[in-house]
This record gives sequence, C-alpha cells and structure tokens, in this order.
Amino acid sequence: MKGRTAKETLAITTKIVLPNDTNTLGNLFGGQLLAWMDVIASVSAHRHSKRVVVTASVNHVSFQQPINHASIVTLEAKVSRAFSSSMEVFVDVFVEDHVTGKRQKSNEAIYTFVAVDQNGGPIQVPELIPETDEEKMRYEGALRRKQLSLILAGKMKPSDATELKKLFFEEND
Amino acid sequence: MKGRTAKETLAITTKIVLPNDTNTLGNLFGGQLLAWMDVIASVSAHRHSKRVVVTASVNHVSFQQPINHASIVTLEAKVSRAFSSSMEVFVDVFVEDHVTGKRQKSNEAIYTFVAVDQNGGPIQVPELIPETDEEKMRYEGALRRKQLSLILAGKMKPSDATELKKLFFEEND
Amino acid sequence: MKGRTAKETLAITTKIVLPNDTNTLGNLFGGQLLAWMDVIASVSAHRHSKRVVVTASVNHVSFQQPINHASIVTLEAKVSRAFSSSMEVFVDVFVEDHVTGKRQKSNEAIYTFVAVDQNGGPIQVPELIPETDEEKMRYEGALRRKQLSLILAGKMKPSDATELKKLFFEEND
Amino acid sequence: MKGRTAKETLAITTKIVLPNDTNTLGNLFGGQLLAWMDVIASVSAHRHSKRVVVTASVNHVSFQQPINHASIVTLEAKVSRAFSSSMEVFVDVFVEDHVTGKRQKSNEAIYTFVAVDQNGGPIQVPELIPETDEEKMRYEGALRRKQLSLILAGKMKPSDATELKKLFFEEND
Amino acid sequence: MKGRTAKETLAITTKIVLPNDTNTLGNLFGGQLLAWMDVIASVSAHRHSKRVVVTASVNHVSFQQPINHASIVTLEAKVSRAFSSSMEVFVDVFVEDHVTGKRQKSNEAIYTFVAVDQNGGPIQVPELIPETDEEKMRYEGALRRKQLSLILAGKMKPSDATELKKLFFEEND
Amino acid sequence: MKGRTAKETLAITTKIVLPNDTNTLGNLFGGQLLAWMDVIASVSAHRHSKRVVVTASVNHVSFQQPINHASIVTLEAKVSRAFSSSMEVFVDVFVEDHVTGKRQKSNEAIYTFVAVDQNGGPIQVPELIPETDEEKMRYEGALRRKQLSLILAGKMKPSDATELKKLFFEEND
Repeated sequence: MKGRTAKETLAITTKIVLPNDTNTLGNLFGGQLLAWMDVIASVSAHRHSKRVVVTASVNHVSFQQPINHASIVTLEAKVSRAFSSSMEVFVDVFVEDHVTGKRQKSNEAIYTFVAVDQNGGPIQVPELIPETDEEKMRYEGALRRKQLSLILAGKMKPSDATELKKLFFEEND
Repeated sequence: MKGRTAKETLAITTKIVLPNDTNTLGNLFGGQLLAWMDVIASVSAHRHSKRVVVTASVNHVSFQQPINHASIVTLEAKVSRAFSSSMEVFVDVFVEDHVTGKRQKSNEAIYTFVAVDQNGGPIQVPELIPETDEEKMRYEGALRRKQLSLILAGKMKPSDATELKKLFFEEND
Repeated sequence: MKGRTAKETLAITTKIVLPNDTNTLGNLFGGQLLAWMDVIASVSAHRHSKRVVVTASVNHVSFQQPINHASIVTLEAKVSRAFSSSMEVFVDVFVEDHVTGKRQKSNEAIYTFVAVDQNGGPIQVPELIPETDEEKMRYEGALRRKQLSLILAGKMKPSDATELKKLFFEEND
Repeated sequence: MKGRTAKETLAITTKIVLPNDTNTLGNLFGGQLLAWMDVIASVSAHRHSKRVVVTASVNHVSFQQPINHASIVTLEAKVSRAFSSSMEVFVDVFVEDHVTGKRQKSNEAIYTFVAVDQNGGPIQVPELIPETDEEKMRYEGALRRKQLSLILAGKMKPSDATELKKLFFEEND
Repeated sequence: MKGRTAKETLAITTKIVLPNDTNTLGNLFGGQLLAWMDVIASVSAHRHSKRVVVTASVNHVSFQQPINHASIVTLEAKVSRAFSSSMEVFVDVFVEDHVTGKRQKSNEAIYTFVAVDQNGGPIQVPELIPETDEEKMRYEGALRRKQLSLILAGKMKPSDATELKKLFFEEND
Repeated sequence: MKGRTAKETLAITTKIVLPNDTNTLGNLFGGQLLAWMDVIASVSAHRHSKRVVVTASVNHVSFQQPINHASIVTLEAKVSRAFSSSMEVFVDVFVEDHVTGKRQKSNEAIYTFVAVDQNGGPIQVPELIPETDEEKMRYEGALRRKQLSLILAGKMKPSDATELKKLFFEEND
C-alpha cells in the first residue's frame, strides 16, 4: 500500500454564515462549526483512504474569536498522520475580511477517523507522508496525542506513553 | 454569588435520527452528534450561569459504536465544574433499544463554555457544587483537563501542571 | 401484556428557538412547535408501546403566549391513556426565564398515536396506569375526548357518547 | 370593513415528500405535515386579514392514510369563518397518483389564527362570506367548534353553548 | 400518446421567505429561489409526463427586484412545449403586497426536464397543447431556445438553426 | 480601481450528497445543485468586488450526468469577466470517483452577479484580468453572452449585437 502525501488529502470548503447558524449575539454557533469541520475532515480522510470513514474522536477544538453572521468562512482539512486503520486530521478555519479580503485563522481542530469496510469493520489505510514543516510538526505531535487519548480512555498506562512523558521530563531537565 | 448544584444544571434532549443525519452506512454522522451535543451543553451552561454562553473548546469526544438511522437518542448535559467565567460540561449520550427500551450509553463528550456579557466579554459565574460520586469524580478531573488544555495551547509550562503530573508520578510509585 | 405507568412513558426535549423558527414578530411559528411536539409525543408513545407509532390525530393545541427567538423551550410528553392500539399523549411546553431560570408553562397539546406492525397495520398496546392526580384526571378525560372525536368524525351517535353527555347533563342539574 | 369571500382567501402549496420528512416505514411524519399546514393556513388567514397572523389553536387534524416518500402533496387552505379578530381556516390535503395523476384527499385540518398589530395585540378582521355549499357548511360548523373550544378551555358553561347542545338534543328528539 | 394542455400541467406553490433564505441585505437569496423553482417546475413536468423527471438545463433566469424577508412568494409552473423526451417549463414568480394583496411578477425562469424510466434512460412524453396567447407565444419561442442551446453546446451548426436565424434576418429586412 | 486576476477570485466548496438532496432515483436534485452553485459563485463575485453581491441572472446550466447519493462534489467558481457593476461567474462542478479519487467534470454553469451598496444600488467593480487560455476564452465569450441576454430581454436590437452576429456570419463564409 503506497503512502500518500498530506497535500493529496487537502479538502476545502467555503461557507457563508446564515441566520440559523448564529446565537443571540449574532455569532456562529460552535456546534454548527463542529458539524462543518466533521464533514470536510471526513472528505480529507476519505481522500487519503479511499474508504468509507467514520468519526472516531474529536480533540482540542478551540473557539478563540467569534465569527459573525454573513462571514465567509473557509475550512481546510488535511490528514496529519495515519495509524493502521485510523487517520488524524487537522482542520484550519479562516474568516476573510469583507473589505481587504485578507483571511485570518480563527480556529484549529483535530479529528480522528477510522476507515471501515462494508460491514463497518476497521480496514488498513496507507501511510501519510508529511512534506512541509507544518505537516512534519503535526505528524510528530500525532503520536503524543494518540498516547494521551489512550491514557485518558484507560487503554494505556501512563508509564508506557514514552512520547508523551517526554513532554514533562524534557522540560524538567 | 451562590453556588449551584450539578443537578440544577441538568439539560436533557431526545432526538430521532433522520435520513439526513446518516452516512452511507446508515449511521449517525459524527458531525451531527457534535452539533446536538453543543446545543444541549450550552443549555446546561446557561442554566448554571443564567448568561449568554459561547463554546470555548471541545475535548475528548469519542465515538465508539455506530448509532443507526431511526434510533432514539437522548443527550444529558451537566456542568462538571466552574472556573471564574468558564464552565466544563459533560454530555452523556444514550441510545435506547427499540424492543426492550433499555438505554445504553454510546458517547461521552466534554465541552467548555464561557459566560459573556452583552459585548461578548467574559463574566463571572457561580461555583459548581458536585453531589454524587460521578459528579465529584468529574469535578476532580476538570482541573487536570484544564491544565492539559493550557499546556497544549502553550499557555502553561508542564512543570506547573501539578494536578496533571500526578497522573504520571503516582503510577510510577 | 403488562401495563405501564405514565411516568415510564415520559419523554423530554429541550430546544433553542432559532431565527428560522420565527415569524416577522420574532416569535416561534406555531407550525414549528407542532412539529416538535409531534416528534417528542411519538417518542413517548413508542416508549409505551415499543412499536413503530404513527400520528393518528391532533386535538386541542392552543397557543396562548408568544415564544421569543432564542428562548429555551422544554417539551414534556406522557401517554395519558391507551385504547387497544391507540395512545393519547399530552405534551406540556415550558419556556424558561433567562434570568431567574423559572420555567412557565406556555402550551398544552393532545396528540393520538397508533402502534403499527411492519405492514402498517394496527397492533395492540399495553394498558396505561396513571399514578399522580394530574395523570388520573387526564386519564379520565381521555374517554370523553375519544367519544367527541368519534362523533365529529361521524363514527358515533351523540346519544351513545355516555361520558361526553355527562358534561352537559351534570351541569344542568 | 368589507367582507371577503372564502375563494379570495384560497392559498395553495405543492410539496414533494423528501427522505427527511419520513418515518421508518417510509411515510410522511405527522409533525412535518402539521408544520406545512400551519404555514399555508397562515397565508390564507393573511390573505383574508392583510395582517400579521399568529396561530391560536389547532383542532381535529386526522391522519387516515400514510403518505409515501416522493409523493406529490398539495395543500389547499381557505378561511371558513371570521370572528372579530380570529379566523378559522380549513386545510385540505391531497396526494396525486403518479400514474393517473388523480388526486385523492388524504387529510383535513382546522386551524385558528388571530390577526395582530405591531405590538402583538389582536385586531379586527373582515367578515368571511361563504359561497359554495361546502363553504357554507364549514361556516355553520365554525360556531359550534368555537363553543366547544371555549368549554374545553373552561371559558364557557356547557349550558350556554346553544349551538353545540343542538347536536345532542336534536338527535334525541 | 394523447397530447396534454398547458393548463393541465400547472403547478403552484406558495412560500414565506424565512431568515435563512436571505442575504445580508435581508433579501431572498437567488440560490434559494432557483431551488424552489426547480422543485415546482419538476412537478409541472411530472404532471405532463407522469414520469420521473430530471432537470436537464436552466436558461435565462433573471432577478430584477429584491424579494424581502417575510414576503409571501407564489411560484407558478407550466410546461411550454414538449420535444420527444424533454419538456420546457416556464416558472413565473409573484410577490404579494402585504397591505393590498396585489401580486406583482418578480421573476421568470425557463427550465428543461427530461422524463426517464427506472434505469434513468429517456422516455417519450405526450405533446403539449398551448391554448392561451401567452402559452402559444412561449410554445413558439421554445424551438428557437432549443436551437440556441444546441449551438451553445456545440451540437448544432448556426447555419442549421433556421428558427433562430430569423431573429437576426427578419429584423434586418 | 485596479484590476484583479481570475485566479484571485477562485472560490471552492466541497459537499457530500445527503439523502435529502436526492430524487426518487437516488440522484442529486438539480435545484439543490443550483443553490450550491449560487452560493459559491457569489463568494467568487464577492472576492472580486469586495462588495455585497446579488444574483442578477443564471444562464446555460446543463445537467448531463446524474450525481449519486453520497458523492463527494466539488464546485469551483471564478469570475470570467466584469462589466461596470456586474460580473459573470463560471462554476465548474466535479465528482470524484470513490476508489480512484479521479475527479470528473459533471456540470458547468454561468451566473451573473451585481455588486451593490448599502441601499441595494449598483456600484462599480474592478476589471477582470484573464490569464490562462480557458480564462481568456471565457472572457471573450462573455460579451457575446451579454448581448444575447440583452436581446432576449428586449433591451438590445439583434442588429446591434455585433459580437453575437459573428457567430452566424463567420460560419456562413
């Protein structure tokens, strides 16, 4: 199974924020953005695996700045790393200025998908090949995040999370 | 500002999974569930704070088992802990068996909301008082999760995450 | 077939009123509320019968006070009485005050559902056992409402509607 | 204020039943039909009153036969009678045969609307002038239904419901 | 196969413009109107052919005047001409004045549909019989529009478009 | 006002076809695609003009091949030419093969938008600078299409449509 570059998995979607997507302050609901991110991230994971993919988990989505009604919002998703049947996908969210057209990053999210066969069972996916610096950094971090998930789910002992422990020890040096 | 019990913040919603909520395998889209969870969690945070609340982050949502088309799905949200202007909310998702009526837990998610005033600025919220064992356990874990978020966001040094470090040290004993 | 208490059939859902749910006065559309009530009432009827249920009729829904955009609305549905294959369901609608959190009843509706088998044919359901005073009062009234429906549909002679006639005669005494 | 004929208040809408409108048997949800009926009935009431109208109550909607996915459904609404600020509206629902094109009546519903001014207060509407036999019959029945609603709401004594009582006495003669 | 009059193919739908249907100026989105027109035009083509119909092309939709939020919009579709398996359908869009009730034409669109069998293959449809002056004028123009479409699609030489050329030559006389 | 290249106006969106987007043959509704194209085309026109834009007309959309449920559909919109306050936008639609990932063009559409100020009045837009061969070809054709629209709307005499007439004369040589 030949590896695929991160670039090949890029999926883009642009949305306009409609009234029904907003809260009483007139800003985009977090839940609506979560749903949009899930769809475009699943397209990215599909482009990597060429399989039906299902959401396995969501991690570390943060909502720093409100996104207003009528904003033009662009979501870009790319697989950051593949593990046997699962894929970690980063989604970067940008809002563009109505006058200058400059786009500003407003959110970043990390989703994990599993590729499944017709019966819903997990199935192997190709390796992910990072190329740019950002892709490589995210690729590296993916293992640490995976260990963290396993610990939090009670499926790994903290003492076995070698990558994650470095985070604490290295800094202690 | 008087504290509020977790029980007072309970918010419940029951949904039926419609065709548009499902993927090609006929199961509920992760993104749709994320949006449903966000809405009911925001109601819980509102019941705690009596303020407009906005989603600040999502952590650790996992999707273990597929939820089928036409399933009756119940989401229960409760604030697990409050910090100055933010609230951590747990959402438990249950699916009920069509024949026996037995409900089975299918998902668990943790969202964080911030209470804001009319200008969108953060505003103080009451303390959360846990009562049951589960509420207390979640209350305890909230601080650890908060430290983890701060580290991952680069806003805290791992060496200062006293609660989180215990996770590794205790087990090493 | 063992009877089921009204309490066992309770179904709850909480909604936030979005812009698309409102009319030009900024209040919840009656039609949207009718659709929400139908869904949660069908969940209640399903919990009673453990069968696919279809709406048979709607009676006496009144809309006293407008419900504003962004309101948090809670619907509670309970079976009030069962007749061979049909179930009468009451839906109580509450709106909560944004500041005090006090909830106020804003609507009451009565729906009737029929339990059906795979071919859509009617199928027997368990008896409903009322426990509280309100449940008993609604249970009593159900027969009168059923007779009224039959008369209005031309399927019963007014002279045979013994329960309903009491309404007129008792008061004449 | 000049009266308006029932014909002038006719409002028509044709829909195609989509997957999201259907239950697990593949038939149109009652709740969806209730919402559609409310919208078209409100257009009819608006055409009569030329005012913003709000749903006041729903009475006697029955669902005799299932309506399948992909059906072409036509709703026709007409005001049946006007009382100071309220209007009773009948909605007739038809489904057309895909091969012969013959349309068959599948539902009938009665809604009541109130015309309101900018502050939501009730405002006078023109008289309704029935012309056809059916329009006249529905016009006659409207008073009886109004009395019935008032009794059920505890706002009229059964002994004062002169029109309604005839239903029982006439038949007893 | 007996012909069908244009009148027999008339399909009507009335909509209220909701917040989600509007742009930042508070007017109906063009795209939403295009979708509504497609649905009602397909009903008209179905009434003509009694077959599943699929959109083949859209031509010459113009949007002259904005349609405001909360407007009552009526769409009327009628087949203007049939060619072997395809049908040209005109959709006229009207907005009604909230006070006078006068309706004003706001848009006109021309869609083409193809009738298909269960495998999606084209299938013959009846002839269309125009009766009124407008129906006849649209019937005449349909051939010219068909030739124009074929030329633009590179499927016909301009020199063979006899009907279309008249447009230029006649005026040159 | 400095011109803008076609490339700068590129807007992309990727969608998954859901059950509610499909007809009884399980294929994407034409009307849904028309709405999607309108939104992404308006984003492109906005990126060119940095103004609120409203749909002015739709021309020549053709639907050659059905797009199935669950397809991943990508729409790419680019301004092809600007005229004082209006912009012609091309939308190319691609469907990707689930196994090979190869994307195949399935539709092409031409929309026209007008840039408007806060009162809805037309406002000048920058020139469009085509760069690639395709962009140049579409730029050239835009004037011909504009003349055709003006003739069909009765706003230009065929004899004045110099660009359009070439289509017929050149070939006659």
